[in-house]
Amino acid sequence: MSVPPINASAPSPGEIVSAVSHPAREQLELACVLHALSDPMRLRIVAALADDGEMTCGGFGLPVSKSTCTHHFKVLREAGVIRQRVDGTTRLNSLRRDDLEARFPGLVAAVLSAAAAANRTLAPQLTGHSGPVA
Amino acid sequence: MSVPPINASAPSPGEIVSAVSHPAREQLELACVLHALSDPMRLRIVAALADDGEMTCGGFGLPVSKSTCTHHFKVLREAGVIRQRVDGTTRLNSLRRDDLEARFPGLVAAVLSAAAAANRTLAPQLTGHSGPVA
Repeated sequence: MSVPPINASAPSPGEIVSAVSHPAREQLELACVLHALSDPMRLRIVAALADDGEMTCGGFGLPVSKSTCTHHFKVLREAGVIRQRVDGTTRLNSLRRDDLEARFPGLVAAVLSAAAAANRTLAPQLTGHSGPVA
Repeated sequence: MSVPPINASAPSPGEIVSAVSHPAREQLELACVLHALSDPMRLRIVAALADDGEMTCGGFGLPVSKSTCTHHFKVLREAGVIRQRVDGTTRLNSLRRDDLEARFPGLVAAVLSAAAAANRTLAPQLTGHSGPVA
């Protein structure tokens, strides 16, 4: 699967200019976005950002190492799913909902809804199930 | 990302019993399904099956080798996106739309719509664009 070229997009008015680059809206690719979403930890990150807006990298409480966490944020950013901006010594993350909706209408809502539905459905059905659960 | 265990699901009445195994509906995992969909060739396969119902492996006209094609069908089948049944010397493929809809409502429709919209949007905008296009 190809990865889109990463170009710095123009900052919004008032946005802190940072060294973090992002693909522009028209560069987002469906396959890359789906790949970025195809991991349980990254789905948790996206769901948390959808609920809570802007969050620091350390604010998600993921059960993975810091380097793994950094990798997940990089995959999400390079696919155009999240935007990261530098504020002092931290990176603040937000979901690029408007860009994703403009390019792939309904996709993020369907994925978030599916993730929530899967969690609700799995909980009572898989009691005692020993297989992996997304 | 974990891969769900592959168990043979019970054949439907009238279905030809084959050696091809599939995850049961309740074993489908969102992350695995998204991963299966995160490839331009596999998106083409799924879109074709959504339009045309049951198709042989050779009926898609994909610009990839036979072994790559076989790999794509395997990924889609193991994730539970497609069902394959053996009919004589061929494998017939179909989209597991009902199972996917039951587990992840709206997801397949959103992905197919996003793929179609992306294709429509990219065509006029990216004339002369040299980067990869999903």
